[in-house]
Amino acid sequence: MAQKLLKNGFIISMNAERQAFENGDVLVEDDRIKAVGVVPEEMIAPDAEVMDVTGCIVTPGFVNTHVHTSQQLERGLADDVDLLTWLHERTWPFESSLTEEDSYLSSLACGLEMIRTGVTTFAEAGGQKVNGMGRAVTELGLRAALCQSTMDCGEGLPDGWVRSTDECIETQLAHYEKWQGAADGRLRVWFGLRTIFNCSDDLILRTKALADEKGVGIHMHCAEVLEEVRYVEETRGATTVEHLNKIGALGPNLLAVHTVWLTPREIDLFRLHNVKVSHDPAAAMNVLGFAFVPEMLDRGIAVSIGTDGAPCNNRMDMIDEMWLTTLIHKGRTLKPTAVPAETVLEMATLNGAKCMLWEDEIGSLEPGKKADLVVVHPSSPGTLPVHDPVSAMVYAMHSSDIEATMCDGKWLMKDKKVLVVDEEAVLEEAKSRAAFLRKKAGIVLPDRFPTVKVR
Amino acid sequence: MAQKLLKNGFIISMNAERQAFENGDVLVEDDRIKAVGVVPEEMIAPDAEVMDVTGCIVTPGFVNTHVHTSQQLERGLADDVDLLTWLHERTWPFESSLTEEDSYLSSLACGLEMIRTGVTTFAEAGGQKVNGMGRAVTELGLRAALCQSTMDCGEGLPDGWVRSTDECIETQLAHYEKWQGAADGRLRVWFGLRTIFNCSDDLILRTKALADEKGVGIHMHCAEVLEEVRYVEETRGATTVEHLNKIGALGPNLLAVHTVWLTPREIDLFRLHNVKVSHDPAAAMNVLGFAFVPEMLDRGIAVSIGTDGAPCNNRMDMIDEMWLTTLIHKGRTLKPTAVPAETVLEMATLNGAKCMLWEDEIGSLEPGKKADLVVVHPSSPGTLPVHDPVSAMVYAMHSSDIEATMCDGKWLMKDKKVLVVDEEAVLEEAKSRAAFLRKKAGIVLPDRFPTVKVR
Repeated sequence: MAQKLLKNGFIISMNAERQAFENGDVLVEDDRIKAVGVVPEEMIAPDAEVMDVTGCIVTPGFVNTHVHTSQQLERGLADDVDLLTWLHERTWPFESSLTEEDSYLSSLACGLEMIRTGVTTFAEAGGQKVNGMGRAVTELGLRAALCQSTMDCGEGLPDGWVRSTDECIETQLAHYEKWQGAADGRLRVWFGLRTIFNCSDDLILRTKALADEKGVGIHMHCAEVLEEVRYVEETRGATTVEHLNKIGALGPNLLAVHTVWLTPREIDLFRLHNVKVSHDPAAAMNVLGFAFVPEMLDRGIAVSIGTDGAPCNNRMDMIDEMWLTTLIHKGRTLKPTAVPAETVLEMATLNGAKCMLWEDEIGSLEPGKKADLVVVHPSSPGTLPVHDPVSAMVYAMHSSDIEATMCDGKWLMKDKKVLVVDEEAVLEEAKSRAAFLRKKAGIVLPDRFPTVKVR
Repeated sequence: MAQKLLKNGFIISMNAERQAFENGDVLVEDDRIKAVGVVPEEMIAPDAEVMDVTGCIVTPGFVNTHVHTSQQLERGLADDVDLLTWLHERTWPFESSLTEEDSYLSSLACGLEMIRTGVTTFAEAGGQKVNGMGRAVTELGLRAALCQSTMDCGEGLPDGWVRSTDECIETQLAHYEKWQGAADGRLRVWFGLRTIFNCSDDLILRTKALADEKGVGIHMHCAEVLEEVRYVEETRGATTVEHLNKIGALGPNLLAVHTVWLTPREIDLFRLHNVKVSHDPAAAMNVLGFAFVPEMLDRGIAVSIGTDGAPCNNRMDMIDEMWLTTLIHKGRTLKPTAVPAETVLEMATLNGAKCMLWEDEIGSLEPGKKADLVVVHPSSPGTLPVHDPVSAMVYAMHSSDIEATMCDGKWLMKDKKVLVVDEEAVLEEAKSRAAFLRKKAGIVLPDRFPTVKVR
């Protein structure tokens, strides 16, 4: 049995009483947490690896509940453009040019950013090449629920993206058989529904039945743009969430993403059916609008945080998303007390675990749970002084203040060095492959400033 | 003559044609820029210091047009509280406990954060101890317009903050005599008007006359909260900006800060009088509301970016503020094309220089201007790949990607090492002094989570 002792930090446990421990310890044994706060000396093995975390803050690993790992190489290719340009001229051509190997590389690069920003678990938003993602996550040491972006209707989409309903189900079942429980149980497979624009009611209902049967979740972009809600009203007679309710698709294993355009009654439907929500503030501000997050939290709905993908955010950075989450709703409601720091931390950890149906094993630092944690060291002019460590985590920290990230009892990063893959090599390959793919997809960006090529 | 040659970077010049230079150079001689883009070989001295900036982005130094350097030690002391608690129980007690020495230390700590985030010039928002600030800025090597927070009326304020109108003017004149043009011309002194809550019309008009006479600017929080606008309406018969217009206080040397609560006619008044605006997005989202930035930019008003102070933002980070600036107005207007990256960069550089009445010397990389610049090196998983360097600067970069900062031809930071002051010593002192001041001010923060003291 291998033990790791983190000694003398400010421990934010997120346990049932939400205790924090000043100058407290965390004892890890193999892949699980053995003790938190006060660790009895007799529990500590003589050969335990000891890490002094004096002056550091230790939190549960962050849970990113919506990230397109397949879009990482597209960062910056679709900024400041309208939605149709974003889809038709940038994201679809780029993403449909990816091979499985590209998806693997993209997931590696995205995973590196997650490790450096304290994420230990993520919900894949859905790309096309699940096998590529699965290989990457296995190597990265992260925990994830993968899923495929699934569509059985819709026009103008790249070749091969729209499949028959049967095919959609079969392909996903094959992924489920291959990856569910893989990587020492760190991998799970969910079912994906891209958006209601691209999913028939038949697909939605068969997906729901299958997810219920397998005991996994459904990942779905939901009520994300006004046009979607209007479209569903016109074609199916009700707004998105009302329609999903009518056909019986709402349930505790539905992770509804963005959910910007909801009526108060639809929020109540979420509560009634214990639907889970991923709030992605940067993406929301960028292209979607402001979601009713304090209103959903007040009703007890599990709202978590996601980064979304590189072309609609650019920063796959949970620390920044936490900061935005507290700011955006204060600005929208004009209440400076809205969504305070402690609530944001709960969203990024425990609510994330709930949204991923994984709260029995992750989301808090408690004996018996999986050892997923982050060590943050405030030491820069941008973080000091720290009067209030809980508030500092949300308001003042940057991901560059993260010292170490552990998942499943294993250090993925320590002393700011990534230990699981060759970071420099991955990034070099990502750079050159990204340039190649841009050409392959035929994307030419206009110069924002008149640009002179000197050499 | 000392020359520095930055070789082979992506140079964002912000010159009149807004040219960028791919694989271009910048030649600096003493405190000024000698050539940009294509540098003729015969111009380069044999002993020029050469810096290879291959793969880097070089931009003009950022201009932070609103920062309370005296509030740096208060970071995190006033998060998630309403405005009255913020003022009466946190910020006023803390700030009024500062000695001149504390203000010096606070400005050093804040200056370090600015250097690390690429700021080379800032407009002080107004503290009480201008001499402390002046000493700090001299040592830091930054460029600044200092000012005192000036009030001649108002109730409930800390002892000594409200002075007679005569005293307000005299004290500021003394600062002007002492610091105007100091530190090799890097220091200027402006006149401060805290807010219209605390400034009589007499003070406002005498300040305006004096600023006109001396050829300097006026720094004023303006139309920042709804209560202010209502209060001015009730007590002086018009909303803030309408009132300032009526008494003849609007002019090209007024830097109006926040300006969240404006009518369309007031925006037109700003345009008519060429009033300058500082937009501080994090502070705005946190406690104020969303300003009409695209609307002001469309009318040709010089809108720049400020970070505000530590207790209402926590991140005195211009890179983050640039990111917020592009996001916040897309979300507010639901236009994904609003305030694009190139506009944000203009706000953070050239518009900043205009707002500080300093555009003849700073704000762009052009021959003859002062050598104020930033070198950014995208090399982390959070920045790569870079398809579009201009967009990347605003959307994807973090301040941790800044490699070097130069002001007045001198490196303030190089290879991520601050060269002007002993960073570690300043931060250690800031930590202990901040804890002391919190006690002195009698501020006790409630625990956000029940906290167990283990040791």
